[in-house]
Amino acid sequence: MRMLIKNGTIVTAADSFAGDVWIVDGTIVAIADARQRAAFAAEREIDAAGKYVMPGGIDVHTHLDMPFMGTTSRDDFQTGTIAAAHGGTTTIVDFAIQARGQSLRAALDAWHAKAEGKAAIDYGFHMIVSDVNPSSLEEMGGLGAEGVTSYKLFTAYPGALYSDDGQILRAMQRARDLGALVSLHAENGIAINVLIEQAVARGERAPRYHATTRPEVTEAEATHRALCLAEVAGAPVYIVHLTAARALEEVVRFRDRGLPVYAETCPQYLFCSTDDLEREGFEGAKYVCSPPMRPRAMQEELWRGLRTGHLQVVATDHCPFDFVGQKEMGREVFTRIPNGMPTIETRLLLVWDGGVRAGRFGPSRFVEMMATAPAKLFGLYPRKGSVAVGADADLVVWDPDREQSLAARALHMRVDYSPYEGRTVRGAPTHVLSRGTVIVEDGKFLGRPGAGRFVKRSGYAPA
Amino acid sequence: MRMLIKNGTIVTAADSFAGDVWIVDGTIVAIADARQRAAFAAEREIDAAGKYVMPGGIDVHTHLDMPFMGTTSRDDFQTGTIAAAHGGTTTIVDFAIQARGQSLRAALDAWHAKAEGKAAIDYGFHMIVSDVNPSSLEEMGGLGAEGVTSYKLFTAYPGALYSDDGQILRAMQRARDLGALVSLHAENGIAINVLIEQAVARGERAPRYHATTRPEVTEAEATHRALCLAEVAGAPVYIVHLTAARALEEVVRFRDRGLPVYAETCPQYLFCSTDDLEREGFEGAKYVCSPPMRPRAMQEELWRGLRTGHLQVVATDHCPFDFVGQKEMGREVFTRIPNGMPTIETRLLLVWDGGVRAGRFGPSRFVEMMATAPAKLFGLYPRKGSVAVGADADLVVWDPDREQSLAARALHMRVDYSPYEGRTVRGAPTHVLSRGTVIVEDGKFLGRPGAGRFVKRSGYAPA
Amino acid sequence: MRMLIKNGTIVTAADSFAGDVWIVDGTIVAIADARQRAAFAAEREIDAAGKYVMPGGIDVHTHLDMPFMGTTSRDDFQTGTIAAAHGGTTTIVDFAIQARGQSLRAALDAWHAKAEGKAAIDYGFHMIVSDVNPSSLEEMGGLGAEGVTSYKLFTAYPGALYSDDGQILRAMQRARDLGALVSLHAENGIAINVLIEQAVARGERAPRYHATTRPEVTEAEATHRALCLAEVAGAPVYIVHLTAARALEEVVRFRDRGLPVYAETCPQYLFCSTDDLEREGFEGAKYVCSPPMRPRAMQEELWRGLRTGHLQVVATDHCPFDFVGQKEMGREVFTRIPNGMPTIETRLLLVWDGGVRAGRFGPSRFVEMMATAPAKLFGLYPRKGSVAVGADADLVVWDPDREQSLAARALHMRVDYSPYEGRTVRGAPTHVLSRGTVIVEDGKFLGRPGAGRFVKRSGYAPA
Amino acid sequence: MRMLIKNGTIVTAADSFAGDVWIVDGTIVAIADARQRAAFAAEREIDAAGKYVMPGGIDVHTHLDMPFMGTTSRDDFQTGTIAAAHGGTTTIVDFAIQARGQSLRAALDAWHAKAEGKAAIDYGFHMIVSDVNPSSLEEMGGLGAEGVTSYKLFTAYPGALYSDDGQILRAMQRARDLGALVSLHAENGIAINVLIEQAVARGERAPRYHATTRPEVTEAEATHRALCLAEVAGAPVYIVHLTAARALEEVVRFRDRGLPVYAETCPQYLFCSTDDLEREGFEGAKYVCSPPMRPRAMQEELWRGLRTGHLQVVATDHCPFDFVGQKEMGREVFTRIPNGMPTIETRLLLVWDGGVRAGRFGPSRFVEMMATAPAKLFGLYPRKGSVAVGADADLVVWDPDREQSLAARALHMRVDYSPYEGRTVRGAPTHVLSRGTVIVEDGKFLGRPGAGRFVKRSGYAPA
Repeated sequence: MRMLIKNGTIVTAADSFAGDVWIVDGTIVAIADARQRAAFAAEREIDAAGKYVMPGGIDVHTHLDMPFMGTTSRDDFQTGTIAAAHGGTTTIVDFAIQARGQSLRAALDAWHAKAEGKAAIDYGFHMIVSDVNPSSLEEMGGLGAEGVTSYKLFTAYPGALYSDDGQILRAMQRARDLGALVSLHAENGIAINVLIEQAVARGERAPRYHATTRPEVTEAEATHRALCLAEVAGAPVYIVHLTAARALEEVVRFRDRGLPVYAETCPQYLFCSTDDLEREGFEGAKYVCSPPMRPRAMQEELWRGLRTGHLQVVATDHCPFDFVGQKEMGREVFTRIPNGMPTIETRLLLVWDGGVRAGRFGPSRFVEMMATAPAKLFGLYPRKGSVAVGADADLVVWDPDREQSLAARALHMRVDYSPYEGRTVRGAPTHVLSRGTVIVEDGKFLGRPGAGRFVKRSGYAPA
Repeated sequence: MRMLIKNGTIVTAADSFAGDVWIVDGTIVAIADARQRAAFAAEREIDAAGKYVMPGGIDVHTHLDMPFMGTTSRDDFQTGTIAAAHGGTTTIVDFAIQARGQSLRAALDAWHAKAEGKAAIDYGFHMIVSDVNPSSLEEMGGLGAEGVTSYKLFTAYPGALYSDDGQILRAMQRARDLGALVSLHAENGIAINVLIEQAVARGERAPRYHATTRPEVTEAEATHRALCLAEVAGAPVYIVHLTAARALEEVVRFRDRGLPVYAETCPQYLFCSTDDLEREGFEGAKYVCSPPMRPRAMQEELWRGLRTGHLQVVATDHCPFDFVGQKEMGREVFTRIPNGMPTIETRLLLVWDGGVRAGRFGPSRFVEMMATAPAKLFGLYPRKGSVAVGADADLVVWDPDREQSLAARALHMRVDYSPYEGRTVRGAPTHVLSRGTVIVEDGKFLGRPGAGRFVKRSGYAPA
Repeated sequence: MRMLIKNGTIVTAADSFAGDVWIVDGTIVAIADARQRAAFAAEREIDAAGKYVMPGGIDVHTHLDMPFMGTTSRDDFQTGTIAAAHGGTTTIVDFAIQARGQSLRAALDAWHAKAEGKAAIDYGFHMIVSDVNPSSLEEMGGLGAEGVTSYKLFTAYPGALYSDDGQILRAMQRARDLGALVSLHAENGIAINVLIEQAVARGERAPRYHATTRPEVTEAEATHRALCLAEVAGAPVYIVHLTAARALEEVVRFRDRGLPVYAETCPQYLFCSTDDLEREGFEGAKYVCSPPMRPRAMQEELWRGLRTGHLQVVATDHCPFDFVGQKEMGREVFTRIPNGMPTIETRLLLVWDGGVRAGRFGPSRFVEMMATAPAKLFGLYPRKGSVAVGADADLVVWDPDREQSLAARALHMRVDYSPYEGRTVRGAPTHVLSRGTVIVEDGKFLGRPGAGRFVKRSGYAPA
Repeated sequence: MRMLIKNGTIVTAADSFAGDVWIVDGTIVAIADARQRAAFAAEREIDAAGKYVMPGGIDVHTHLDMPFMGTTSRDDFQTGTIAAAHGGTTTIVDFAIQARGQSLRAALDAWHAKAEGKAAIDYGFHMIVSDVNPSSLEEMGGLGAEGVTSYKLFTAYPGALYSDDGQILRAMQRARDLGALVSLHAENGIAINVLIEQAVARGERAPRYHATTRPEVTEAEATHRALCLAEVAGAPVYIVHLTAARALEEVVRFRDRGLPVYAETCPQYLFCSTDDLEREGFEGAKYVCSPPMRPRAMQEELWRGLRTGHLQVVATDHCPFDFVGQKEMGREVFTRIPNGMPTIETRLLLVWDGGVRAGRFGPSRFVEMMATAPAKLFGLYPRKGSVAVGADADLVVWDPDREQSLAARALHMRVDYSPYEGRTVRGAPTHVLSRGTVIVEDGKFLGRPGAGRFVKRSGYAPA
């Protein structure tokens, strides 16, 4: 199967130039000038005139079909990956979760079972280690060969996903030796639990108290701690969903010292705020996730972090719960509101609109944070993450003038609300290709559940 | 009893001027010009010509008669306070230690019993809370009335003195409400234990590995965490025995933001270093204490902290163990070396010599860090801590030209070695007064065990 | 003449305690307990019960009878010092100004002539060197013996008071050798002149453009430059009227490194803002001074600087011009508004109210920034600046409950407006003493023009 | 003319992958998989197996045929560009210098005359404005159309190249409006001249005093000033030859705030130090350039800046003077040693060896700092600076195993010494192409003087 994407502006994390992309059997075989076109007999052509041709989005932070807080995130690997594809994302890395007492093996098998036959785009797994002990540390040694080369630990959620500092240190040391990368959910869960208990005792039960009981400084503290432990271990570290300006300040300090410290933020922190948590009635519940919404002024700090490069990645932490029946579990007290928001489909749309269209950065920087940087950090590169010869033809043809409503009914995620209801963005994909197959064209899904393949990732290899 | 100290240069934390001190019944009743002397009929006169008259030293960090690591610190309240007096210290605040499961009440009683009838100078108690729980939090409410208005918690020593972040937060909140001050021993004990286990497994058993397993970043981390938790609590915090330049950097950041954050360092960190830990044979054991010795270059950072005022207090963490029989317990492995060094007698001597004589700061700053600042932070002021009308006549007459050997045999602490063997300093007390009584004169102890009284301290009241 | 101030709370920069002050012939001879009172036969007694007894205020930044911008500041040494006394200030250091081509000698003589027979309180002179050249550098050597031990240079006002970086460096080196202190007016005057020219060309002529043409960064730049030049010279430096948060940030950086760097701010920057510059009509002209008003949010940064000690002094930059006839010179264009505001009388009143009463700091810190710190930095100490035996009895008896209107008609400065019209503060002096003589009592001036003496200051001697 | 570079590893600032480069008439027309090779009939093939194919180096800081300090830099556009080509550099941007009183036009004409018919590689010109005045500001408006879109100003060299802060501000404002970029040589020349005068008066005449009279803080000061002026102007700024750690600290502060601030360093600051200046005899003169050599420890700070991206470019400041006859002019006093060092040929060699081979960063980062970043900042992109379709085929085929001596006799610059005599590096070009023509192959120059063309550069366009 030979395909030509012609006349587009090809964008990589470094370059932007007019050219054609030649694809054979799902792989990019050339990037060429139009005058060479005669040399390539294509069976199908896509005309990208006036559009950008970019690597498909890579979302390294999703939670599909995840049991959490007594319920399960609504999107499974079928609905979630189809929604992702609609938004221009062609690879996700989801989190397999080791339950306490369970083996990593069992956890990984469970997640493979969830994805198998359902995923419409390629996918990988990080492993959440809830139980760092000699056995699980030993088991980590075998996962690399299976393509699982990253781990996530929590300073939040004591009694559940939480690891203590010794466990984190040991896991980082082990990951360092294996060439794997450790991610941290960095909030001081133990201090937060005290604040929650006290708030609830004072009768503070509405959604907005989800934020007041997780103050900025608890995120800054845990972030600094994670960076320090990584420094002790001599290991790289990746902070997921960084939210607070002061947490970013810690990341900046370590990065300016030259340490291999990375951080992602998510669209909801760039576009929503505590104002949303305080919406009338129980509406605020739609914006409950952890870390929580921050004051509106903090959004600009995060955009600045993206512009300066101190934040490397925008991922989603996609974890959708219906307002009806799920978010409502917390009507009586915010602690029972399932934490999570739907974003897997809107990531590129929002960041293009707020980042590129708004003039904060250019298309190359967009590609870097949406695809190239996560691909490199998490071992998907060079197979994924760029428009380059030899890479998978995971591509989006992006029309900077296409408008897209973010209303729930205009989107494809399996969730009964949109945090961005009423908002329209400009800039959207006209074609999305997964390994050379057009899976979305002009808003129609042309792919197939089960066509997505598990991707064995290589280890962390800093540039 | 009416006493006159005449012709001296009186030094307070702010001022320095020629004058006489008039004392009646142990209290300063006037500071006067020599020409007013006729108006005061003194029964005893001390001529302080050419000398400084300063408030007696206040050492807010001592461990006398303390059971630790399977043995007991050598100095008890008799030998320790006599040694302190020789060095110009007239008040100490020692640490009563709640054992796990014990009440604060019982701990306080036990420490009162240790001191009663033995102390040669006035003393108070901080309370180490090893077991923060509803009962001990409740008990804190009663201690203020008994003059115990400060608490110490540990992020070090898991399984023993360690409190988790929730316990620390709750204790800080409680202390805030009571007007009490929380101190922190800030090292990440959980991470350190991992490093120790790994080092010992590698055969690293000599004293110098005490430092390599407690790297600077573990102190910086715990310091930042303590400051963050205090910020969450809206409480002041005091970091004991700050040692690492990077921990100081954290303190500076919070202080520059205007938060009520305080820190002490100790003479051993100003004068000793990892070079001492690496001395031949088992000599390094003499320098084992926690936090550990740091590289020599860090001394200058601590002096700078004292000069800029970011470090407010020099205390001792006096906790002496004999080399023979005690330090030797760790000959096989450094983890069994009792942590602690003897310093109660040499604090003023060392800091005057290295600070004032060396030109790093003047006598007023010396007085501030040795007496006034600790008095104010820990509720001893205005009774103690300055040369002021109405204050206890706890005074030292200090001869800047008097030389003093720091050899073990020239000192009075009950311990079989000196970390400063062979060193002579210039600047030493000729007279030390406790509430108007001369207890040391020209190197002779004239006081009496049991003459020291327990001082009820008032709460933390920032200037 | 023997005087007793009894029953007050005596406040120094370090201490606060109940006591009497004994004064003989204008000098403090004792600070004593009430029970010693019988020993002192006083001819006059002041009862300070319920009040504070503090050192008289020292204002190290005044411009009396100064020719500037084609007119002359309204207060001369008579009216200005009487107003100062009313507000509790007992010593000023004014600026003698060397005109280009003039000798320092001639400038000093001219300023002596202005003050002689007029000043109601003691006074000293700094020397503004407008013409740093071999001759003026040589002349600096003789001024110390005459009690002039501080110099001021400008990076502002090119063509008038401006010195280039080489001149500043040479003056700092010379001052260092002489034990003198160099002050800097730190704004980048050359860049500002470009902005002014451009603004005026755009028709921006109202008072508010005085601030927009002197943006914060021009102050931060010049401050950093002054600190760097002092570092090159190995000399201390004192930044006058620091206004901008970013300039403070530069000062903090250098101070945290331990360098001898000092800064003052002024009441107008703590209480006024660009909001005042933008008042209707031409009212904004009343708030034109340099550096200019800053946004209101910056006030809190300056208060924080005072609390942390990074700002050491509050002085006034008192330089009053009538609204009618003087400020009005700039009705057509802001560049002709004489720069300056009246503050000499209200300094202690404002800072007590906004600092001590508002709970930002206590009376000792107030004394330190109002009297002790400027006295020490500028060689007035120990004669001035504290309540200490042997010091001049320059004292204020301060009633924390006394209310004082800041309306122009309630004040004594020779100027036709008050920037604080309509504002009442709480906390004011009941008695002001200059060398033991009561010169203000309950709002009445009892002193005498000409009673103030020139004070020979000693050199800069850091604590 | 159709050329194929096959089997290499193509490296861009973002990507690295196996591929062929197809070139037609000097332009890259495709980057393709080997299996597409049949479709491209090449007249010449280069086998790059085992080698990297990278964009040719771009050196944006050279001084060829420059009159300076009474002599002229030895390399002219012929010898200099041939040497550059040997080292893998295919484009330079040299500095045309406006003399005081001269028009920019005349300066540009003069430099065109120097290059015309001589340059062996493509070249552009920055314009040094020595005389910022209404006429030269006006003239700037016309230069963009001629392809001169960047300006350089000096805070150094008063009386010669120096501009005052007002001139710098006006030039920055003008450049901002024109879409041009201003570079700064940031040393405080006025302060330095004072230090030089004083040093020489003390008899300090040897080469090493070149460094002591230009202390680090004078560079940090001028750097901060330049950044502040750019902030006032709302303009980007580029600091040339950044040398001092504290200057870098200033750059980092502004960059972390998100401002468009850029800086370059040079190989001599990464590899030489004050140790070299202190070499025996007059050898130190070989290392005299401005800013001067810094202590050896500072090299690591610069490498860190390159790794973190806070330094964006490595350029050379190539300005060679013979030891015999030129450097010797300063035998009597260092002020007469012509400032400058030869580096145009060794830039890629040194930075690959010390950067990539030493493991400090990877090939993509190397390409970014050597070619892509300078191309983008200075308007050469996308024509130059990457391996991309449509770009000039300015390429190097780089053999990571090729060894190269840095002895003077092994190099091609017209200068009688090498600062790196005796040093061998690993990693060197086997082929260098200028617009598709092989101009260097295996160390032989195959190009032609005069083949290099003047490149009209577009304006500054941040990514």
